[in-house]
Amino acid sequence: MSGEDRIILGIDPGLAHTGWGVVHQTGPRLTCVAYGCVATDTSVPLAMRLRKIHEQIGAVATRFQPVCVGIETVWFGQNITAAFATGQARGAALVACAEHDMDVLEFTPRQIKLAVVGTGSAEKDQVQYMVQRLLKLSKPPEPDHASDALAAAICYATHDGVGARV
Amino acid sequence: MSGEDRIILGIDPGLAHTGWGVVHQTGPRLTCVAYGCVATDTSVPLAMRLRKIHEQIGAVATRFQPVCVGIETVWFGQNITAAFATGQARGAALVACAEHDMDVLEFTPRQIKLAVVGTGSAEKDQVQYMVQRLLKLSKPPEPDHASDALAAAICYATHDGVGARV
Repeated sequence: MSGEDRIILGIDPGLAHTGWGVVHQTGPRLTCVAYGCVATDTSVPLAMRLRKIHEQIGAVATRFQPVCVGIETVWFGQNITAAFATGQARGAALVACAEHDMDVLEFTPRQIKLAVVGTGSAEKDQVQYMVQRLLKLSKPPEPDHASDALAAAICYATHDGVGARV
Repeated sequence: MSGEDRIILGIDPGLAHTGWGVVHQTGPRLTCVAYGCVATDTSVPLAMRLRKIHEQIGAVATRFQPVCVGIETVWFGQNITAAFATGQARGAALVACAEHDMDVLEFTPRQIKLAVVGTGSAEKDQVQYMVQRLLKLSKPPEPDHASDALAAAICYATHDGVGARV
């Protein structure tokens, strides 16, 4: 990892909220480039919501030129309807990543917590606190979705060996 | 329906195979314009497979200019991993539909069988047989995914009132 100099994207996909975060890795140093969240309106037709996710993630890729992306695996304990909705959002986001030739690695929530907090059983607010510290941000990144996306990008930066190539 | 003159797309989404079919409706008459199947290779990274689905459905839309699309609801009885994979494929396909400003209607398998065969409990080969008959094809449309996509397009043509706008 010490010789790396790369722009890494993290994505936390969801139909209503897709968080994204961009991290610059220079050797052992990580800096936050930008983060945000694509929110889609439930009153808008599904296909248009997916189009917005695809477009906005594509715009982030065009603007910051990440070479790779870390993405959290979906927690299959949730109900199947939610998993299906998240799947669609993730599909829309991944199309944009492929169009920008990014290397995609998937991490489990446990792998991300371990990379960011040092324990796989960390709570959500601990992750947010450590993301803030590791990236030297003046305040905790918000919303949660953006923080989770930055955590996935940090995990890619420091633990890309444990990720699953998808 | 009698005054309709429109090009209708049907999609049967899946990560390994996404079937598509294009039907021309002129009043009560339906003709088959084209059908096919986007196959993706399991050895290719997920994001690239989704990109291919998005690209090819987009190419079908550019070529045939459908104004609307019928799509089958995913059967949630299947396991959650399969539903998630199908969700991602569906997301990739729907982005292409939204980019081409199509009206999207979703139908249950029962609604499609009822529209095509006349009974909601029809078997798969009955659907394929009726798709062939209704569209006056010289042979049953293959693969299954293309036949199912044509069935969704026929359902849109004749029963758009029962579909759910998504």
